[in-house]
Amino acid sequence: MMNAIIILSGGMDSVTLLHYLIKRQKISPAIITFMYGQKHHKEIACAKEHARILDCKDHLIVDLTFLKPLFARSSLVSNQIQIPNMDDIKGNPQPSTYVPNRNMIFLSLAAAYAETLGVPDIYYGAQKHDAYGYWDTTTQFVTQLNAVFGQNREIPIQIKAPFVDYSKTAILQLGQSLDVDYAKTWSCYKGDSLACGYCPTCYERLKAFADCDLCDPLPYNNICVET
Amino acid sequence: MMNAIIILSGGMDSVTLLHYLIKRQKISPAIITFMYGQKHHKEIACAKEHARILDCKDHLIVDLTFLKPLFARSSLVSNQIQIPNMDDIKGNPQPSTYVPNRNMIFLSLAAAYAETLGVPDIYYGAQKHDAYGYWDTTTQFVTQLNAVFGQNREIPIQIKAPFVDYSKTAILQLGQSLDVDYAKTWSCYKGDSLACGYCPTCYERLKAFADCDLCDPLPYNNICVET
Repeated sequence: MMNAIIILSGGMDSVTLLHYLIKRQKISPAIITFMYGQKHHKEIACAKEHARILDCKDHLIVDLTFLKPLFARSSLVSNQIQIPNMDDIKGNPQPSTYVPNRNMIFLSLAAAYAETLGVPDIYYGAQKHDAYGYWDTTTQFVTQLNAVFGQNREIPIQIKAPFVDYSKTAILQLGQSLDVDYAKTWSCYKGDSLACGYCPTCYERLKAFADCDLCDPLPYNNICVET
Repeated sequence: MMNAIIILSGGMDSVTLLHYLIKRQKISPAIITFMYGQKHHKEIACAKEHARILDCKDHLIVDLTFLKPLFARSSLVSNQIQIPNMDDIKGNPQPSTYVPNRNMIFLSLAAAYAETLGVPDIYYGAQKHDAYGYWDTTTQFVTQLNAVFGQNREIPIQIKAPFVDYSKTAILQLGQSLDVDYAKTWSCYKGDSLACGYCPTCYERLKAFADCDLCDPLPYNNICVET
């Protein structure tokens, strides 16, 4: 019996969260995954794979690719804007990798789904970003959005983001204890066949593996990873 | 030059708001209209007609009909749930005509569009409901959602709902002073060729016309309107 919803991208954070909810919290979530024109849409296959591994029958994939023009400011979506390297965005509070209001859109749609299913909790894998930032992955964002949802007079949905203060390293450590197969997650924003190694999410991912003295199982374009 | 966005349904409230913004406030809004599986999708033709009348070139129609299952609790969408009459829902704080989180979904998508266009204001036609209620048309909803949007570090979008404390009668009075053609608006939730006269929005609409000593130009199924 489903008792929550999780937004699953197929990246490290949300995949770890899915394993955490099922294996530690004994929660049976319905999964919702979004396509929004992201260059790295290959993450969707990873989301599907973990739903299969964990025997989650309810996996809704919502294709919003036709809304790509709404996100045209973002380098994650626009072919006119190159994905920056981590070095390019250090200290930037809202870099080009930010997708306009994406998280609120996803959470809003998940909330409608939650109301319809009659489950009050929506989990999403927001994590702490040390070197740059997004306004829509913070504790303040979650708290204030919950103040809005709390006004619903029948099913006051609540957003839960258990990793909101976790670094990628902390998430990886947790994931290791949960036996998450990170070969079946995708991060690189460029979405090529090999991960680039330099974009902000590759940087964070590689740093997390290095911090944990682990090898990232993903193939990289320009990094020789010892195995 | 566009300097705001308006969510236009094609009903009395948002159509009046569009005329008010253009004629009184000298605002040039981009328009966004949503299809979400509503039985009364004929309102969309009215939205298009007012965009044409007011020479608004930027009218984006977003078809979310495929998301109908997310809204399956609502009588506005589900073929399994009958549209109630006004008498059935009096005093109900969240009647079946409520569409799960619809307004936040629309405002979230409009906010992404606003960020991409670089305009900070989104107008929507929330109005006061005297006899029943929706949590997502209130001043508190707007204020708290604006607290969330205010955290955006580059373009802090603000929602504006100038009619949030207006009755339908007050909106009609304003619309009369703006020469709005209400024959080109649609309200009835049933969406049949003739308005039903009894559903909550027909009730409010007819009361507004009666309060103003005016005849509603729309054809009704079971009401003899003198002209």
